[in-house]
Amino acid sequence: MQFSSSLLENAVNEFAKLPGIGKKTALRLVLHLLKQDTKEVGHFSEVIARMRKEIKFCRRCHNVADGDVCSICANSQRKQEIICVVESIRDVIAIESTQQFNGTYHVLGGVISPLDGIGPDQLTIEALLQRIDKEHTEELIFALNPNIQGDTTIYYIQKKLSFTPPVRITTIARGIAFGGELEYADEMTLARSLQNRLPVESYVSGR
Amino acid sequence: MQFSSSLLENAVNEFAKLPGIGKKTALRLVLHLLKQDTKEVGHFSEVIARMRKEIKFCRRCHNVADGDVCSICANSQRKQEIICVVESIRDVIAIESTQQFNGTYHVLGGVISPLDGIGPDQLTIEALLQRIDKEHTEELIFALNPNIQGDTTIYYIQKKLSFTPPVRITTIARGIAFGGELEYADEMTLARSLQNRLPVESYVSGR
Repeated sequence: MQFSSSLLENAVNEFAKLPGIGKKTALRLVLHLLKQDTKEVGHFSEVIARMRKEIKFCRRCHNVADGDVCSICANSQRKQEIICVVESIRDVIAIESTQQFNGTYHVLGGVISPLDGIGPDQLTIEALLQRIDKEHTEELIFALNPNIQGDTTIYYIQKKLSFTPPVRITTIARGIAFGGELEYADEMTLARSLQNRLPVESYVSGR
Repeated sequence: MQFSSSLLENAVNEFAKLPGIGKKTALRLVLHLLKQDTKEVGHFSEVIARMRKEIKFCRRCHNVADGDVCSICANSQRKQEIICVVESIRDVIAIESTQQFNGTYHVLGGVISPLDGIGPDQLTIEALLQRIDKEHTEELIFALNPNIQGDTTIYYIQKKLSFTPPVRITTIARGIAFGGELEYADEMTLARSLQNRLPVESYVSGR
């Protein structure tokens, strides 16, 4: 692409560094901003810079936070003795959006994946173990993605917990997605959903 | 979506204002930036704000420019007596990317479209007419999108030119796109490409 302005070119190049944004999309975004008020674009850029500079990570659950502790950990209405273990901030947002969970979280910052060079030390597992020990956690819910890395991580943490286990350790149900069709489900999912079949009463009342 | 940080939420909302970016994509982009260095994100936001604040429009062709005159108008290597009339900055970039054009541009800022409330006065047509008169333009090439609005705009400008016409007034060829297939071309395009058929010699040498 040939630009007649280096200001425009630099802006397009910056946008094109973002994941999933190619040069053409970047140009579309920049030309859109060019049509906006200078003040508005200034606000856009300020909010982004401020977010990166001022955002903190909750010292308890490692979720994003405006202060030292995130708004979920600081909320006394939520059951602090239930911890939902997730891989990333994105998962916290996904679960929060269901409005079905009233406990707290622990963000691991990834899952154990030797192939990618990620071991337990790069994750917040040690902090989680200390937290469970100190807070007398009653339930630990693993909400990790259903794959080998997720399962390995669950297994590792469970092993480490052997001396101070919470009352219940659970994992989110794997099965056929709501609205999904049996014939298109993969064998692994279908097999697991058969093994872990539920009594119909609990299914109906759980809706 | 439920966020546990207002800094994160504001940043996502700002990105989601951009065209074609929904909340999920916005979140993906913000989480990507969160993983980058503070300095790098600061640079990103600065480049965007600076682009909007400092970019100018060429006083001659209305293309984007770093100074008073754009780099194309300021380039004495380019044929200043040929003007290619385009709708937007995006079209300048598209034509420049072909590296086949060595004249100058005139950016109209849109096309005449009564349905959208855009008349000749909202475009840079008057400036174009004055420019042609003053600069003794030799050729005027219309590179507008092939639709009713584009054709109306060409017709309007041509009418206005009647007293001081350039030597040649042309429009980019409409026809079957390179690599396109005849059977999928619409009737209008196919009909026009038959009417405006080219001698085979000129086609081969024009490649």
